[in-house]
Amino acid sequence: MSSALRIALIGAGRIGRVHASNIAACTETDLTVVADPIVAGAQDVASRFGGEAIADPLAALDRERVDAVVVASPTPTHIGLIEACIDRGIPVLSEKPIDLDMGRVDALRPRVARATSPVAIGFNQRFDPAIAEVHRRVIAGEIGAIEQLTITSRDPGPPPAAYIAVSGGIFRDMTIHDFDLARYFVGEIDEVTAVGSCLFDEGAREHGDYDTVVVTLKARTGAIVTITNSRHSSYGYDQRIEAFGGKGLLSVENVPASHVSVSNALHAGARGPVVEQFLERYARAYANELDEFVAWVRTGASSSPTFTDGWAAQIIAEAAHRSAREGRTVRTDEIN
Amino acid sequence: MSSALRIALIGAGRIGRVHASNIAACTETDLTVVADPIVAGAQDVASRFGGEAIADPLAALDRERVDAVVVASPTPTHIGLIEACIDRGIPVLSEKPIDLDMGRVDALRPRVARATSPVAIGFNQRFDPAIAEVHRRVIAGEIGAIEQLTITSRDPGPPPAAYIAVSGGIFRDMTIHDFDLARYFVGEIDEVTAVGSCLFDEGAREHGDYDTVVVTLKARTGAIVTITNSRHSSYGYDQRIEAFGGKGLLSVENVPASHVSVSNALHAGARGPVVEQFLERYARAYANELDEFVAWVRTGASSSPTFTDGWAAQIIAEAAHRSAREGRTVRTDEIN
Amino acid sequence: MSSALRIALIGAGRIGRVHASNIAACTETDLTVVADPIVAGAQDVASRFGGEAIADPLAALDRERVDAVVVASPTPTHIGLIEACIDRGIPVLSEKPIDLDMGRVDALRPRVARATSPVAIGFNQRFDPAIAEVHRRVIAGEIGAIEQLTITSRDPGPPPAAYIAVSGGIFRDMTIHDFDLARYFVGEIDEVTAVGSCLFDEGAREHGDYDTVVVTLKARTGAIVTITNSRHSSYGYDQRIEAFGGKGLLSVENVPASHVSVSNALHAGARGPVVEQFLERYARAYANELDEFVAWVRTGASSSPTFTDGWAAQIIAEAAHRSAREGRTVRTDEIN
Amino acid sequence: MSSALRIALIGAGRIGRVHASNIAACTETDLTVVADPIVAGAQDVASRFGGEAIADPLAALDRERVDAVVVASPTPTHIGLIEACIDRGIPVLSEKPIDLDMGRVDALRPRVARATSPVAIGFNQRFDPAIAEVHRRVIAGEIGAIEQLTITSRDPGPPPAAYIAVSGGIFRDMTIHDFDLARYFVGEIDEVTAVGSCLFDEGAREHGDYDTVVVTLKARTGAIVTITNSRHSSYGYDQRIEAFGGKGLLSVENVPASHVSVSNALHAGARGPVVEQFLERYARAYANELDEFVAWVRTGASSSPTFTDGWAAQIIAEAAHRSAREGRTVRTDEIN
Repeated sequence: MSSALRIALIGAGRIGRVHASNIAACTETDLTVVADPIVAGAQDVASRFGGEAIADPLAALDRERVDAVVVASPTPTHIGLIEACIDRGIPVLSEKPIDLDMGRVDALRPRVARATSPVAIGFNQRFDPAIAEVHRRVIAGEIGAIEQLTITSRDPGPPPAAYIAVSGGIFRDMTIHDFDLARYFVGEIDEVTAVGSCLFDEGAREHGDYDTVVVTLKARTGAIVTITNSRHSSYGYDQRIEAFGGKGLLSVENVPASHVSVSNALHAGARGPVVEQFLERYARAYANELDEFVAWVRTGASSSPTFTDGWAAQIIAEAAHRSAREGRTVRTDEIN
Repeated sequence: MSSALRIALIGAGRIGRVHASNIAACTETDLTVVADPIVAGAQDVASRFGGEAIADPLAALDRERVDAVVVASPTPTHIGLIEACIDRGIPVLSEKPIDLDMGRVDALRPRVARATSPVAIGFNQRFDPAIAEVHRRVIAGEIGAIEQLTITSRDPGPPPAAYIAVSGGIFRDMTIHDFDLARYFVGEIDEVTAVGSCLFDEGAREHGDYDTVVVTLKARTGAIVTITNSRHSSYGYDQRIEAFGGKGLLSVENVPASHVSVSNALHAGARGPVVEQFLERYARAYANELDEFVAWVRTGASSSPTFTDGWAAQIIAEAAHRSAREGRTVRTDEIN
Repeated sequence: MSSALRIALIGAGRIGRVHASNIAACTETDLTVVADPIVAGAQDVASRFGGEAIADPLAALDRERVDAVVVASPTPTHIGLIEACIDRGIPVLSEKPIDLDMGRVDALRPRVARATSPVAIGFNQRFDPAIAEVHRRVIAGEIGAIEQLTITSRDPGPPPAAYIAVSGGIFRDMTIHDFDLARYFVGEIDEVTAVGSCLFDEGAREHGDYDTVVVTLKARTGAIVTITNSRHSSYGYDQRIEAFGGKGLLSVENVPASHVSVSNALHAGARGPVVEQFLERYARAYANELDEFVAWVRTGASSSPTFTDGWAAQIIAEAAHRSAREGRTVRTDEIN
Repeated sequence: MSSALRIALIGAGRIGRVHASNIAACTETDLTVVADPIVAGAQDVASRFGGEAIADPLAALDRERVDAVVVASPTPTHIGLIEACIDRGIPVLSEKPIDLDMGRVDALRPRVARATSPVAIGFNQRFDPAIAEVHRRVIAGEIGAIEQLTITSRDPGPPPAAYIAVSGGIFRDMTIHDFDLARYFVGEIDEVTAVGSCLFDEGAREHGDYDTVVVTLKARTGAIVTITNSRHSSYGYDQRIEAFGGKGLLSVENVPASHVSVSNALHAGARGPVVEQFLERYARAYANELDEFVAWVRTGASSSPTFTDGWAAQIIAEAAHRSAREGRTVRTDEIN
């Protein structure tokens, strides 16, 4: 067996720590360097999971024998870091979105197309065991071709107003995951219709965003995808998928926080709420995502989402943004 | 207690028989006359559930001491029979839709507005015990104001092509129930966006109809309603509702055909499929609908859906039909 | 088709009314006479469901053209009425138990063995659709031979102390149903071990009875049956069965009172409690029981529980009673 | 914070590896030495999780600065190692059972009573998150006092005949866990009644053991415990508990191997089977068990099961063994 991949991690925030922990736990990877302008954060991560802590991300790429890079820094830094990795021929796994400015994303496309090293985008939900299982069973023909795909995603609570101000809006920030899942299950999307309301979140209202949206996508196959998003949920992190075909329905169900149920004067066999946090819900997904990225680096082939997947999901987000504001169905080829 | 209401039933088909059975079982009603141009059908119903069998519907209204009328004859006859009942001051409960031609429905409105006797429309699903319970709990404030309402309705299999030819299309024929439920839960609807595909049913394809649709409604309150319809379902009659608010989610779940579960090498605790037929799924709803109609006739007040409810649901159906064909959001005030 | 069976109903109490309603609703049966020493009760039942009301049960049997008898009078009257029916050659369906005195039951056996007309015992639970379905699937071999059978039966609340005083004790009164189900599923029972406690019910304590029991039965096949009974249950009428074999587990699950679920800060997808009353839980079982009795009368063959089934269940009840008091396993052949 | 506890692990087999992994992952513990007569096994464990590998268990205890010992070696070695730890004043966590010979266990009791260092017994199931949650909620009074406790435990498949030959029989080997859980929930046990069959496993038949047992325990409180064991289960590792009290029922439900469900012509919303292996089902329980042992060593107080807990569970196992063979209820004070 070849020796472990030496990984440079850019970004020591919440997601960066998830990646650091997985890199340390994976027998195929070592954490070699952690870069964050807030050096104390980088040092804390390095002390727990290994590697050197530095402030300058670009310097991290140039450390001796960095075999691959994981980018978990703020969105505006993604494009620069992806370019730097391509220049150096170093494989890179970047968190989504590529950039909030679709023009900058488009501009990067030809360069990625010519790149000789992998550019993977972190749509971790594809790697959730239940979502991956449904995908596998759909591919195996268990329910026939997908006719309707229903995705429900509700966060436990809205983010701070300051975050919404720079998020690009709910379609680019939250629904983007669901757009990628839609493509994962039904392929290319032709038409996008989005409806939004702002019903409860002051931060969304203040910044002209929605807190409640429904998006309908029509796939090239004729399949219809429905995405239901809310920025709050009293019963935990609501993450469900239903894939409906002529031969059956496959569902990704919510993950209960406990396997205890209660029966009493009010309920029979009632479970507690579902898990609260996306880091808990998708813990294994992040680990599996890393495994697939390693497979790409090692073998040149994998099922990792590519730069093109990241770009395509953002095209749909642009179309949804426009649709909700203009009150009409928007074709994805209007955006591109 | 006053004596039982003497009911004239118009139509001895499948739905007519459901009404006949309920009229016979209800202690407040007697079946007095059954009218159907196919007299053998009327005779069969009368022999089982009581009353006189005749061919001519209008003659039925003029039988001595008819206290109320239930209309379960083909759609094109509805308007004429409603008018005849209004003329005679006889309360009428008519099956939906009022008429496939929206112009004729509009033309009837002023006449109904001046009517001195009840004109109820048979949106029986409002009376399903589970749907009525969710409505009651929403009104009681259990989940806060509804922010998102998700309605799934899938039939076991498509109707004959000949039926589709005269049905007015899936929105007017099938989704119409869901449009009424949407109004029942979230009130007036401002905007309608519909997406349709024809994926599996030859009859739908032949007559330019869809077999697979998703409709998104925006209510005046800002609540967003999603309706998912399919003309087939391998696992039985799929009838679910989720009402989502800031304080929780109330769900109408499918009704299993059996209370047996099996655990084996493939499954743990697996139930069989859900009930197959709408007459089985909504049996109690039809009976409760009759009770509410009787209450209206007796007391002048009830929660029965009115002619206006029937008209309003059809407005949404028209908007959905136009939206799917024109690829844009249609405001309900464009139709009216 | 032959004309409807003319039924004499003995007993106009709670169970008598259930039978009366089913006899009236069944197209194969007519209620001809209702006998109850409390004549007002008989008159009320007759006015609702048909037939003549009289006080004297024996006189009822001698009314002209009584084709069959249903006995729903108090337990001490059962044996006399069964004998009277045998004497007259009239088929009889008697509620359980046959008699609280095992000696009297034994004494009746030879007479029943020589009878030329059916003597059915009302173990209605065998006819519950879910229980009957599990039985059918076990017979069909779906889970292999039963190795363990687990029966849970908990009543919503204890009966009045006065009832317990004359009930014969929990094993003869409540567990008797489960003993019959055990025999229905695994056949002859060899050994009985019962453990009882009195934990909450003053009536049970006063009369030396248990309110909480567990009985373990060993079948001739080696299968082990566990019966768990309680005289109270905060979450409704708890009625579950698990049949375990080498190829799987078939379960009769509780019947929820509503198909609504709620998700909130405390629960996700929580149903309300199960149905409260045995008359609601087993409504269809009583109707199916009548159908099978009619089949026996009409064709001479049916799956109705026989007098021998009633006798055998009572043998087990005797053994359980003795086992709990003596703290040892009791063989059923010690009783017989 | 004090430095990490230095742990000596005795036994590098399947359970030893689980402990090694948890010791390495826990920030409060370091793996210092691994002892196994099969040195290659010890070396493999040490290379993965740290520490020195040696053959001689006693030598391991005498390595410099061993703060605590985890015993995961074969049962016959447990007593000698516990004694050696007591002699040296080193805290020890030993796998169950203490010894198959109840006389040897009794003989050890006074010595443990005088010990100055903790002697914990590895009843890991107490630390399963769901079981611990039910225990917490029972203690908090949510369901009132426990009246009935139902424990179902079925293994995926029987062990090899050679294992059964030395296991001491199903009560001492498998039910022992359930006996400890019974005491954990309802306290002291007075009476034991066990029924066993040998229905499918050649190994059990060959060695005079049962493969199918039901044990009923009567607690001093009057609560009745039912334990259902089988050596096979077609649907995975069946591990359920129901605690029933006057105010409700708390259940530990099985853990599904996947959060995907399927609906088709056979089933609606059917999950796959439950997790297969006890190491997977109880992975977190082993980690939490280690945490509690560390707490005992650090603070002198914890909820770890003690030697007395281990002894008491074995007393019940002896009583069950005798009960099944003699066909009578056995009092625990007959054994002691």
